[in-house]
Amino acid sequence: MAQNKNIAVVLSGCGVYDGSEISEAVLTLLHISRAKAEAACLAPNIPQRDVTNHLAGGRCEGEIRNVLVEAARIARGKIKDIAHADPQDYHAAIFPGGYGAAKNLSNFASLGAKCEVQPAVHKFITSMHAAGKPLGFICISPALAARALGEFKPLLTIGNDATTAQTLTELGATHISSAVDEICIDETNKIVSTPAYMIEGAQLADISLGIEKLVKAVIKLIPKNGK
Amino acid sequence: MAQNKNIAVVLSGCGVYDGSEISEAVLTLLHISRAKAEAACLAPNIPQRDVTNHLAGGRCEGEIRNVLVEAARIARGKIKDIAHADPQDYHAAIFPGGYGAAKNLSNFASLGAKCEVQPAVHKFITSMHAAGKPLGFICISPALAARALGEFKPLLTIGNDATTAQTLTELGATHISSAVDEICIDETNKIVSTPAYMIEGAQLADISLGIEKLVKAVIKLIPKNGK
Repeated sequence: MAQNKNIAVVLSGCGVYDGSEISEAVLTLLHISRAKAEAACLAPNIPQRDVTNHLAGGRCEGEIRNVLVEAARIARGKIKDIAHADPQDYHAAIFPGGYGAAKNLSNFASLGAKCEVQPAVHKFITSMHAAGKPLGFICISPALAARALGEFKPLLTIGNDATTAQTLTELGATHISSAVDEICIDETNKIVSTPAYMIEGAQLADISLGIEKLVKAVIKLIPKNGK
Repeated sequence: MAQNKNIAVVLSGCGVYDGSEISEAVLTLLHISRAKAEAACLAPNIPQRDVTNHLAGGRCEGEIRNVLVEAARIARGKIKDIAHADPQDYHAAIFPGGYGAAKNLSNFASLGAKCEVQPAVHKFITSMHAAGKPLGFICISPALAARALGEFKPLLTIGNDATTAQTLTELGATHISSAVDEICIDETNKIVSTPAYMIEGAQLADISLGIEKLVKAVIKLIPKNGK
């Protein structure tokens, strides 16, 4: 067992519209580093659902990018295929947001309450939860928790968007409205969430406060006997 | 004139090996937000010198990406072609690092002391400097200052790498060794630099301290009568 807390950070590409929201991912890594814990990046080795032109908007037709390869940009190459990740190696896991969570880690963006979580990601989430390890979900990624762990009636926040909140409720979750610098803690399921860029006009300084609270709360929920 | 300080953040793509170092870019945006200033992202509208596979290493042969379009991933789409940026609109400018600074904003990576800075970037740097506006350079980007402003004998740091420091000296700069959480301030030229990931094994928490100091020092150097 590692001396330090080892926290999986599950990425979904590199860019808010077709992958991980970059600032949310970096702030997760920052606050893990500031807490003197270790971050271990993971992502599924699958094609992105699409490639979005982040300047002009719209799809880059015909272009194909891989979720793991693009997520490696955020991780500076230090990243592993989540299908080969053993939950025993991690004390906790955190999921930054971005459309990648709803397009690559699941098909929530297109199917809503009828979505499925990508199989390796689904297995990782349910295994971590079953082992009593804390999980953090940022921005839109609480949709993954609602879908994969709906039967456990998780308490989640995605901020204040009524439509998304309603969809999470349909999946079995209870939604708690929150501000950008707030977190929602489900002590029973050891699940922490914060809305970040789900809040319209959110400022980076406030998003950072929310993610800092989330990282600290996730670490606090790690059982004393480690992973 | 804007009420808030408006700080240009000049990006070079999206990913440490062929563009902007993503964490350095996000931390620059974070600390500008925490200082209650405004960040305005800029990048040149040119093809990247290459596309690097950040997972496997090596070039993605035949793949072409555009610096401005990829940098828009970090900026969430809010970014402008630096060729159309008017220095009068900004109080200061900060350049995050990553190989993009040495491959796209200049050809320092291949030509060293014989490098040229990309024309629009060169013009922006020299115009800002001539107008007495402060400039911040992170990681390898002080090479841009050394090349564009060498005649003004700038005081710069890229950390402790002797070869790179020597090249900067050949361009006219004086190099000051520094640690990851330190900054180098050239009061005469209003240039601030910090080494970030140029320091081997640097931790994100310490890089954040260095960039926070740089942002604060750059803002402090803004003349009282604004931009």
